[in-house]
Amino acid sequence: MLTNEHIYLGLVHYPVHNKRKEIIISAVATINLHDIARLAKTYELGGYFVINPLEDQHALVHRFLAHWLKGFGGKYNPRRVPPLKLIHCVYSLEEAIEAIEKKWQQAPQIIVTSAKASGNLLDYQMARRLLQQKQTPFLIILGTAWGLAEDLISQANYVLKPIYGVGDYNHLSVRTAAAIILDRLLGGER
Amino acid sequence: MLTNEHIYLGLVHYPVHNKRKEIIISAVATINLHDIARLAKTYELGGYFVINPLEDQHALVHRFLAHWLKGFGGKYNPRRVPPLKLIHCVYSLEEAIEAIEKKWQQAPQIIVTSAKASGNLLDYQMARRLLQQKQTPFLIILGTAWGLAEDLISQANYVLKPIYGVGDYNHLSVRTAAAIILDRLLGGER
Repeated sequence: MLTNEHIYLGLVHYPVHNKRKEIIISAVATINLHDIARLAKTYELGGYFVINPLEDQHALVHRFLAHWLKGFGGKYNPRRVPPLKLIHCVYSLEEAIEAIEKKWQQAPQIIVTSAKASGNLLDYQMARRLLQQKQTPFLIILGTAWGLAEDLISQANYVLKPIYGVGDYNHLSVRTAAAIILDRLLGGER
Repeated sequence: MLTNEHIYLGLVHYPVHNKRKEIIISAVATINLHDIARLAKTYELGGYFVINPLEDQHALVHRFLAHWLKGFGGKYNPRRVPPLKLIHCVYSLEEAIEAIEKKWQQAPQIIVTSAKASGNLLDYQMARRLLQQKQTPFLIILGTAWGLAEDLISQANYVLKPIYGVGDYNHLSVRTAAAIILDRLLGGER
């Protein structure tokens, strides 16, 4: 079976912007754990890093995972188990990078996504080819709240083009944006 | 500006299956109101029908919409307003069809989506061409819970191919499935 185990997703809760463009830590939303893990499983990714520096947010994620992986959740709905096994809860982007590097003996290339990026952007066709070459592992970064801090964006190897639909409106939820990005990069009819 | 105002989405809460394959009415999840309305706005659809036969579920949707369209919600986050204006809360699929027919003087063609459909299916390329011809309005139907009842599927003009990712797993949330379907049918890099 074809897999994309060299490709990882990271959902960043810090550093991100609030609506006043201040740098904040956002809270983990359990809907993003389910929905994005299900996407990661659908496209057979290597893992899904939930990145948050706060101890109490880690406790929330671990309690959630215990319910679904060991408690009643997985008995009630076994389809939720394989996706949620892909989740790794880490404190920082650096910790995610180190975990990938340890597995692949090579640091991942970082691709950030943004709804408002400009400048020298990676288009979807180029990104698709890059990922297919499998020459390094990749970590695709998604932001929460009002988007990733510029500092983090500027450290990435690549910035992916924003998703434009048909008109001017491009304020998707991170869940649905992740769906469109993964399908454009890895999907296709079969 | 290019629009897809002849294309509508319908989110069906009845008749759908529960996990034991019984026919049930599912509850409205407000996350599906936001996320799918934002998708509908991104791809400039004509409207988004939330279909549920229960009075108390209509009350929930109307209270939600009042908060976002007239109350504090829209002041706090004005980006949520244009998408949520696309929502029409109706009691049945028939009521959605009648509303579209009234506007276009022509009944919509019904395209249902399903994660487990088989038989004579519409592929994404054919569906894309069909929608572009703009010869009739279209209503694309999404199911909640464990999926649309077979009776409803059998009444549709077309059944769209399920979304397959890379492996065998195809249990996406309705929000992320809607994202992938709309992008495959109407999106594309620009």
